[in-house]
Amino acid sequence: MAGPGEFELIREYFTSRFQPDAETASSAVGPEFEQGVELGIGDDCALLIPPAGKRLATSVDTLVADVHFPAHADPYRIASRALRVNLSDLAAMNADPLWFTLALTLPQSDPNWLEPFARGLAETARRFGITLVGGDTTRGPLSITIQVTGACENPLRRDGASAGDTVFVSNKLGAAAAALPIVLGRVTGSEQQQQWADAAYYFPEPQFAVARAIGQYASAGLDISDGLLGDIAHICSASGLGAELQLETLPQAELVAEINGGDALETALTGGDDYQLCFTVPEKHLSALAALQLPITAIGRMTADQGVRCLLNGEPWQARGNGYRHF
Amino acid sequence: MAGPGEFELIREYFTSRFQPDAETASSAVGPEFEQGVELGIGDDCALLIPPAGKRLATSVDTLVADVHFPAHADPYRIASRALRVNLSDLAAMNADPLWFTLALTLPQSDPNWLEPFARGLAETARRFGITLVGGDTTRGPLSITIQVTGACENPLRRDGASAGDTVFVSNKLGAAAAALPIVLGRVTGSEQQQQWADAAYYFPEPQFAVARAIGQYASAGLDISDGLLGDIAHICSASGLGAELQLETLPQAELVAEINGGDALETALTGGDDYQLCFTVPEKHLSALAALQLPITAIGRMTADQGVRCLLNGEPWQARGNGYRHF
Repeated sequence: MAGPGEFELIREYFTSRFQPDAETASSAVGPEFEQGVELGIGDDCALLIPPAGKRLATSVDTLVADVHFPAHADPYRIASRALRVNLSDLAAMNADPLWFTLALTLPQSDPNWLEPFARGLAETARRFGITLVGGDTTRGPLSITIQVTGACENPLRRDGASAGDTVFVSNKLGAAAAALPIVLGRVTGSEQQQQWADAAYYFPEPQFAVARAIGQYASAGLDISDGLLGDIAHICSASGLGAELQLETLPQAELVAEINGGDALETALTGGDDYQLCFTVPEKHLSALAALQLPITAIGRMTADQGVRCLLNGEPWQARGNGYRHF
Repeated sequence: MAGPGEFELIREYFTSRFQPDAETASSAVGPEFEQGVELGIGDDCALLIPPAGKRLATSVDTLVADVHFPAHADPYRIASRALRVNLSDLAAMNADPLWFTLALTLPQSDPNWLEPFARGLAETARRFGITLVGGDTTRGPLSITIQVTGACENPLRRDGASAGDTVFVSNKLGAAAAALPIVLGRVTGSEQQQQWADAAYYFPEPQFAVARAIGQYASAGLDISDGLLGDIAHICSASGLGAELQLETLPQAELVAEINGGDALETALTGGDDYQLCFTVPEKHLSALAALQLPITAIGRMTADQGVRCLLNGEPWQARGNGYRHF
């Protein structure tokens, strides 16, 4: 009983910070930020009014200390990463953020941890226009479960690809995987490398803008959380297809080659945690998509043959790993 | 890498078991069981179609091994308790079950644990007409986070009570708290006591029937998860009131006195985990409510004076504890 009780803890660090009348919520918050929340934190349930005529998209992810983030990392950064990783699932479905819940398990009630964590969560929530509507705090080994819900008109599912569709990825790959040794302190990078690693690992950018832009053209898509090679296999199996990738076209994030040397391609192909989008586009939409000048790169095509085949300059190429496995 | 990978694990134990065409889902499942689920487990998000013209009620709870249940308990019973505890929050809001998600953290991927856990979850879900629509499995210390969502027309909030309203509880109190020493093996009860303790602790009954019946009459309400004394204080603070309880009227569960002896009243008043409802009713509705012959008992009234006062046969009475605290 070293810290405040559960109810005081929730009220102090979360309720007040996420109330519409709280000081922190007064700026940069559009009217959509509280939209549809009839009753937020503090009752048996939150009461929510879903937007008329739209589907809801919902996803839940748990981050366990020393599995998904270093236990002694800055709590502000842990909160940022936890919420952004979940928001990425909404982006990957082409859904607009509405609400989220937080189930937080903590070894002890420590204000020095809770204050920056709650601040990181509130700032991230405000930036992406999503409202905390409920939660639970329990005593136990540190872990964070966040469930996000969004409104969806034009969903980007995994199962809509056809043979011949072109495979794209957004932005560049490999940053978070290359960053990990620096974030974990196993490698001491230059100051520039450390800043870059910090941004890549703790502040991944959910690809809402790309998802909205491609929504009417893409036949299937997902976010790359476990590594491109493993994740594209999900599109393949959901769509009953295979894929062929031209690895020389793979956009590699800055500094990956500098940090990882000869492993740069492997890192870009199998490294997780980038939260870029991988999606497929039928040929008839390629020119309309090109006209949008999005930060996306064509890396291959869907095939009627099952399985994922990789070619490097026309030669078969075999990765050593095939994506992150939790067990 | 002793067990199957994460994706195989999810597919094997949850997806197939909860698919509408699965063998287990073919009986006793009404059409409402899959209602509104456009896309369930297996994509970045579930896609859900909310019922038109209703609010959504949502609640999340985490159960941590050796905090909220014995780590070595029967996985079938752990699943039952985890889902029922969450369903109780829907009942307490007078919401009808729609969907739930499961975030499961496990030390290892053990089929001998997962099979009965998934079976317990599926059977409980089917009984209460709620559909598993998504989840996450991670490696770490055993804990279970479930988020339930329901449809709500006539919400039972905490903040609607008025001074003079009568305070009721459903059924009887103290069973789960009295059961705990037996469940934990600290006390060896008779065979009858052991069966009773098992039912009270692992199979608490979400009070949907009572909630629906009182919905149009109750001014405020919640479920008693942390003990009546602590939980009625939430109605008091949310409604800006106090309460006065006549303890001689408190309905005590069978065997509480037999097991707990002189502590029976204390157990019924402060013991958690019963998941009965506590609610308030304005005087004008008392006769209509009485005509329904529900399993409820009047135990006191709301007062303009703040705080919760307990009287036993007219004399002030002071509990030693005031409800469960997680920290």
